[in-house]
Amino acid sequence: MKYPKGIKSQAKRPAKSGRSFDGGIKYGQRGMTLEKDLDQTNQYYLESGRAVIHKKPTPVQIVNVDYPSRNKAKIDEAYFKVPSTSDYNGVYRGRYIDFEAKETRNDQRFPFINIHAHQVNHMKQCHEQGGVVFIIIRFSLYDESYLMPIEHFLPFWDLFQEGGRKSIRYQDIKASALLLKQGMNPRISYLDAVDEFYFENGE
Amino acid sequence: MKYPKGIKSQAKRPAKSGRSFDGGIKYGQRGMTLEKDLDQTNQYYLESGRAVIHKKPTPVQIVNVDYPSRNKAKIDEAYFKVPSTSDYNGVYRGRYIDFEAKETRNDQRFPFINIHAHQVNHMKQCHEQGGVVFIIIRFSLYDESYLMPIEHFLPFWDLFQEGGRKSIRYQDIKASALLLKQGMNPRISYLDAVDEFYFENGE
Repeated sequence: MKYPKGIKSQAKRPAKSGRSFDGGIKYGQRGMTLEKDLDQTNQYYLESGRAVIHKKPTPVQIVNVDYPSRNKAKIDEAYFKVPSTSDYNGVYRGRYIDFEAKETRNDQRFPFINIHAHQVNHMKQCHEQGGVVFIIIRFSLYDESYLMPIEHFLPFWDLFQEGGRKSIRYQDIKASALLLKQGMNPRISYLDAVDEFYFENGE
Repeated sequence: MKYPKGIKSQAKRPAKSGRSFDGGIKYGQRGMTLEKDLDQTNQYYLESGRAVIHKKPTPVQIVNVDYPSRNKAKIDEAYFKVPSTSDYNGVYRGRYIDFEAKETRNDQRFPFINIHAHQVNHMKQCHEQGGVVFIIIRFSLYDESYLMPIEHFLPFWDLFQEGGRKSIRYQDIKASALLLKQGMNPRISYLDAVDEFYFENGE
């Protein structure tokens, strides 16, 4: 059974309490995960009225629910389902926004093993419907996050599907994706990159 | 603890096997729920390339995960969370689509008790961002489903918030919402109503 990375690590290693080493390499993340940064960013965008973008709930197959008391429902058997869509979607400037966010500790490339084929298919479908679709890729070791438009991602993915390279090289991402400004509030101003790529180029 | 209706009834009364009476009134649903009709409809729209619209997973707070074997993760303690968004969203003709679907067995009115205030707030926010936002309301007894644009729903809701009527009367829904064609495939062709209201009126 596959399950989302965040939850697995949450359940297996609850608190690393300051440990920021892995094989001797120090992370640049200062304890924040990409997911938390995006949660905070989306909250900021929501409160400032700029966009309405939410992370979807983790899909779970509920097998059994117990009712220890009249008003309490406890799920006591459930399993993670493989997500059939990407994790984030919403609305910005009237347009449909859809994206997946992934981080890698690799310093040379972004391995496709991080992404499910049906998530890519979903993103393709949204793109064909005229949505604004992209992938946010963070290289943890560099503390750099990139917005890669699906238009730029698909050629690499298609080569991979045909038996080619199983990853996108860091330098290819640098060349074909937008480096995101990181700050305090919002932590990752990815909508500025959306403006730049999707709206200011006359689309 | 609040939990979604569908799951509650799924867990508590697994199979009514043909029972279609409740207080002596026969339902017009022929065993199909609105949710199932919409699942089938969205699948049809997806496969025919017309739109990409999905139901969001039920939000669940995962408390404990057990690993009976290396590759199996079993959630053995989790609770239903009150959803903070509406249930359905996606992309159609480049636009963001967002809606909530509710059915009532009431034959005179649609009671607001069926809808959470934060779901309405979410829909307001999406509407302000230029999304196409509506509520699908089914009157089970009549086997009639209506698409009520959020623009038409909010005046009733706002009166309710100010202490007014706790429901929308059936005749008001008939007058301000679009009756949806029901058929075999798709079961509820709600995008035709979206075309009519949002695209053909020059928006």
